[in-house]
Amino acid sequence: MRLGDIAQRLHGRLEGDPDIDIVRVAGIEQAQPGDLTFVANPKYLAHLQATRASAVIVGTPVTVPAGAPAIIRCEHPYMAFAQAVSLFVQQAPPPVGIDRLAAVGSDVTVGEQVSIGPFVTIGAGASVGARTIVYPNVVIAPGATVGDDCVIHSQASIRERVQVGHRVVLQDGVVIGSDGFGFVKQPDGAHFKIPQHADVVIEDDVEIGANTTIDRPAVGETRIGAGSKIDNLVQIGHGVSIGRRVLLAAQVGIAGSTVIEDDVVLAGQVGVAGHIRVGKGVVATGQTGLTGSIAPGEFVSGCPEMPNRDWLKASAVFRQLPELKKRVADLEQRLRELEDRRE
Amino acid sequence: MRLGDIAQRLHGRLEGDPDIDIVRVAGIEQAQPGDLTFVANPKYLAHLQATRASAVIVGTPVTVPAGAPAIIRCEHPYMAFAQAVSLFVQQAPPPVGIDRLAAVGSDVTVGEQVSIGPFVTIGAGASVGARTIVYPNVVIAPGATVGDDCVIHSQASIRERVQVGHRVVLQDGVVIGSDGFGFVKQPDGAHFKIPQHADVVIEDDVEIGANTTIDRPAVGETRIGAGSKIDNLVQIGHGVSIGRRVLLAAQVGIAGSTVIEDDVVLAGQVGVAGHIRVGKGVVATGQTGLTGSIAPGEFVSGCPEMPNRDWLKASAVFRQLPELKKRVADLEQRLRELEDRRE
Amino acid sequence: MRLGDIAQRLHGRLEGDPDIDIVRVAGIEQAQPGDLTFVANPKYLAHLQATRASAVIVGTPVTVPAGAPAIIRCEHPYMAFAQAVSLFVQQAPPPVGIDRLAAVGSDVTVGEQVSIGPFVTIGAGASVGARTIVYPNVVIAPGATVGDDCVIHSQASIRERVQVGHRVVLQDGVVIGSDGFGFVKQPDGAHFKIPQHADVVIEDDVEIGANTTIDRPAVGETRIGAGSKIDNLVQIGHGVSIGRRVLLAAQVGIAGSTVIEDDVVLAGQVGVAGHIRVGKGVVATGQTGLTGSIAPGEFVSGCPEMPNRDWLKASAVFRQLPELKKRVADLEQRLRELEDRRE
Repeated sequence: MRLGDIAQRLHGRLEGDPDIDIVRVAGIEQAQPGDLTFVANPKYLAHLQATRASAVIVGTPVTVPAGAPAIIRCEHPYMAFAQAVSLFVQQAPPPVGIDRLAAVGSDVTVGEQVSIGPFVTIGAGASVGARTIVYPNVVIAPGATVGDDCVIHSQASIRERVQVGHRVVLQDGVVIGSDGFGFVKQPDGAHFKIPQHADVVIEDDVEIGANTTIDRPAVGETRIGAGSKIDNLVQIGHGVSIGRRVLLAAQVGIAGSTVIEDDVVLAGQVGVAGHIRVGKGVVATGQTGLTGSIAPGEFVSGCPEMPNRDWLKASAVFRQLPELKKRVADLEQRLRELEDRRE
Repeated sequence: MRLGDIAQRLHGRLEGDPDIDIVRVAGIEQAQPGDLTFVANPKYLAHLQATRASAVIVGTPVTVPAGAPAIIRCEHPYMAFAQAVSLFVQQAPPPVGIDRLAAVGSDVTVGEQVSIGPFVTIGAGASVGARTIVYPNVVIAPGATVGDDCVIHSQASIRERVQVGHRVVLQDGVVIGSDGFGFVKQPDGAHFKIPQHADVVIEDDVEIGANTTIDRPAVGETRIGAGSKIDNLVQIGHGVSIGRRVLLAAQVGIAGSTVIEDDVVLAGQVGVAGHIRVGKGVVATGQTGLTGSIAPGEFVSGCPEMPNRDWLKASAVFRQLPELKKRVADLEQRLRELEDRRE
Repeated sequence: MRLGDIAQRLHGRLEGDPDIDIVRVAGIEQAQPGDLTFVANPKYLAHLQATRASAVIVGTPVTVPAGAPAIIRCEHPYMAFAQAVSLFVQQAPPPVGIDRLAAVGSDVTVGEQVSIGPFVTIGAGASVGARTIVYPNVVIAPGATVGDDCVIHSQASIRERVQVGHRVVLQDGVVIGSDGFGFVKQPDGAHFKIPQHADVVIEDDVEIGANTTIDRPAVGETRIGAGSKIDNLVQIGHGVSIGRRVLLAAQVGIAGSTVIEDDVVLAGQVGVAGHIRVGKGVVATGQTGLTGSIAPGEFVSGCPEMPNRDWLKASAVFRQLPELKKRVADLEQRLRELEDRRE
C-alpha cells in the first residue's frame, strides 16, 4: 500500500516520500524495511534513529530525531496505529449461510447474512441477528438471543435464555449462563442446590475473552454493561452487575452479587469479594484482593486493598522487616542499658 | 401461584392474604409487586418496610416491622427461599433419546430415558446412566462411565476411563481426566513426559463449575468426594484427593497429590501447594496461599497462610509500616541523644 | 510382566526374584502386592520397610533397609519410574483415518496415518501432519498448520493461521490464537478494538494444559519455545515470547509483550506484568507477582517480587507485626520516661 494513501486514510500529515510501498504494520523493535510502525509514548522516540521501519506514525507535536524514516503525524498516534493495523488485515469472512452440518432447532430466528458453521447447535426458540458469525462447534441453547453483527468464536456456550446484544464478540470457549455457585448448607452438612435459572444480559459492544465464564443467578440477573471488555479466563459470579466501558484483565474473579460501576479497570488476577460495590473509575493493580466496597476514583493495590501509594510504601518497608526487627531489638538492648545505669 | 399454596409447600406459616398471586421470586432490593422475596439474615429486616415485594419469607422467631408485606414464617428461611425458587423454574428438559447427530461408539451402554444431544461423541465401551442428560457437543471418551441422573452441560470433556457417579452436574466446558503435569527433567534440561493414564473418580452428588479442569495422575487416582461442590475455572492437580462436602470457590488451584479433607471451604483464588494435607473443616479466605499442611478446623488467610485473626491484625499494621519505620528512626535519634549526653 | 524383563527394559540392576509378576506401577503408600513402586528421594527410603509393593525402583548408591521388597537399581530412579509407567500403559490409539462426521474444508492437507475424530472442523487451507491424532469436537481454523505426531485433545480450538510444530500435545479445551486484549481508549471513554491478526507459533515438543488460552497479537507474534510445558488454565497474553524448556504451572498469567527466557519455572498462580523480561532460569514460587524485569537465575517470591530468602524472612516478621508495633510503643514510653527524668 502506498504510504501516501495510508497517511490520507489515517488523516495524518506525511513527511517523506508518498510512494514508499508499505507491506505490514510492526512493533518498532521488530520492524523491517517495508514496515510501518508507531511511537505513541514520547519516551520511545529515541528508537526512531535505530528502527529499520520504512515509516513511523508519531504525535503531532513531536520532535523527530535526525535520521528517522518517513513520518506520518497524527493527533492520536496509538489510535492511528490501530487503524493502520485494520488496513492490512486480510481476513476472509466465513461463508454466509447455515452449514448443512449445523443442528438448528424449531422456531429459531436468524437474521439476514448470518454465517453459521458446522457442528453448531442452536436450540429451539433461539435467535441470531443479522450478519452475525457463529464459528464451528458453538452451542446456543434454547431461548437464547444473539444480536446483530456479533462474532461468536468456536467452542463457546451460550446457555438457555441468555441475552446477547449487538456487536458483541465472544472468544473461543466462553461460557455464558452457567449455573451460579449457590448452595444452602443443611443441618447434616450436605449442600442443597439453589436452582440458578434467572437472567444473564450482555449489552452491546461487549467483548469477552477465551474460556471466560459468566454465571447466571437464582433470582435477578447478571449483567455486563455496554462497551465493557473482558479478557481470558475471567470469572463473573452470579448476580454480578458490571457497568459500562469496564476493563477486566485476564484471570480476574468477581464473586456473586457484586456491583462494578462504569469505567472500572481491574488488572490481571484481581479478586473481588461478593456483595460489594466498586465505585466508578476505580483502578486496581494486578493480584489486588478487593475485600470491601471502594469509593469512586480510587487507585488500589494489595490484599486487603489500600491506596496504591500506601501499598507501594508499605511494600518497600516489608522487604526491610528483618532489619527493622533487628533495629527494634537493638533499641531495646541499648535502652535497657541506659535504664540499668540510671538505677 | 397462590401465596397460600406456596406457604404450604414450604411448610411455612402464612401471615397475610393467601390469595395473593405470586409470579416470581426476587432479591429484596429488586423485588416488585407480585414477587416473593426473603430475609435470611436478621440485619436485613429493615429492608422489609421499603420492599415492593408482595410477600417475604422470614425466620420463625423474627419480629416483623409495621408496614411489611405478607409474611411466610419458616424454620430455615434460606432453605425455604431455595425451595421457592424451585417452584417457579419452568425449564423444559431436553427430549429423551439419542440425537441422530450424536456419534456413539461400539459397546456403549445407555440407561433408560437418557437424553443425548447433537454432536455428542461417546467413545467405545463408555456408559451413560438412566435419566442422565448430555447436552450438545459433549465428549465422553472410550471407557468412561457416567452414572444415573447426571447433567453434563455442553462442551464438557470426560476423558477415557473417567468414572462419574450419580446425580453429578458438570457445567459447560469442564474437563475431567486431562493429563497431569508430570515431567522428569533430563540431564540435558529437556522434560520427559511421565504418561498420565491412571484413574479419576467423581463421586455422587458432586457439582463442577464451568471450564474447571481435573487432571489424571500417572499412578493412583484423582478423587472428588461425594457431595463436594466446585466452582468455575478451578484447577485440581493430578493425584489430588478431595473429601466430602468440600466447597471450592472459583479459580482455586490445588497442586498435585494434595489431600483436602471433608468439609473444607476454600474461597476464590486460593492456591494450595502439592503433597500437603488440609484438615477437615479448614476454611481459607480469598487468595490465601496454603504452603504447608493445616490442622483440622483452622481458619486461615495470607501467603504463606496463618490464622485469620493474626493475618487481619498483621495486615492492619502492614499499612502503617512507613509510619512504624519512622517511629523506629525517631527512637534511634532520641536514644542516641540520650546516650551522647551520658558520656 | 516379569520383574526381570522390566529391570532389563529400565537398564536397571535387579536384586530379587526375576519371576515376580508385576501388574501395575503405584505410589509407595498406595502400592499393593503385584505393584512396582519407586523411591527417588532418599528421605522416603524409610517407607521401604512398610510398603506392600512387590518391587521398588531405587537409585544406584542407596542403602536399602532390611525387609524391603525386590529392588531394581537405576541411575535415575525417577526417570526409570516414568519409563516403567509407560510399560504398563494400555491405551488403544483411536482409529486411523478421517471420521465421516468430520467437516474438512477445501485445500486441507493431511499427512499419512492421521486420526481425525467426529465433529472435528478443519478449515480451508489448514494442514495436519503425519500420525497426528485429532480427538472429537476439535476446531482447526482456516490456514492453521499442525505438525507431525501431535495429539490434539477434544474441544481444543486452534485459530486461523496458528502454526503448531511437531510432537505438540494440546489438552482438552485449549485455545490458541484468540484475539489479544488490545483496545485504544477514545476521547469519549469508549474502547476501540485494535485488530489482532498477527501470528502465533507453537514450537516442537510443547505441551499445553486443559483450558489454557494463548492470545494472538496485533503485530509481531506470540511464540512458545521448543520443549516448554504449560499446565492448565494458564493465560499467555498477546505478543508474549516464551523460551525453550520453560515450565508454567496451573493458573499462571503472563501479560502482553513480556519475554520469558529459557528454562524459567513459574509455580501456580504466578502473575507476570506486561512488557518485562524474565531472565533465563528464573524460578518464582506460587502466587508471586512479577512486576518488573528479573535477572537470570533469580529465585523470587512475593508481590512485588523479591529474592525468595528475603521474602521468607520478611514474611516471618510480618506475622509478628502486631507484637513489633507493641514493642515500639513500649520503647517510646520508656524512652519518654528516661527523657522526662533527665529534665
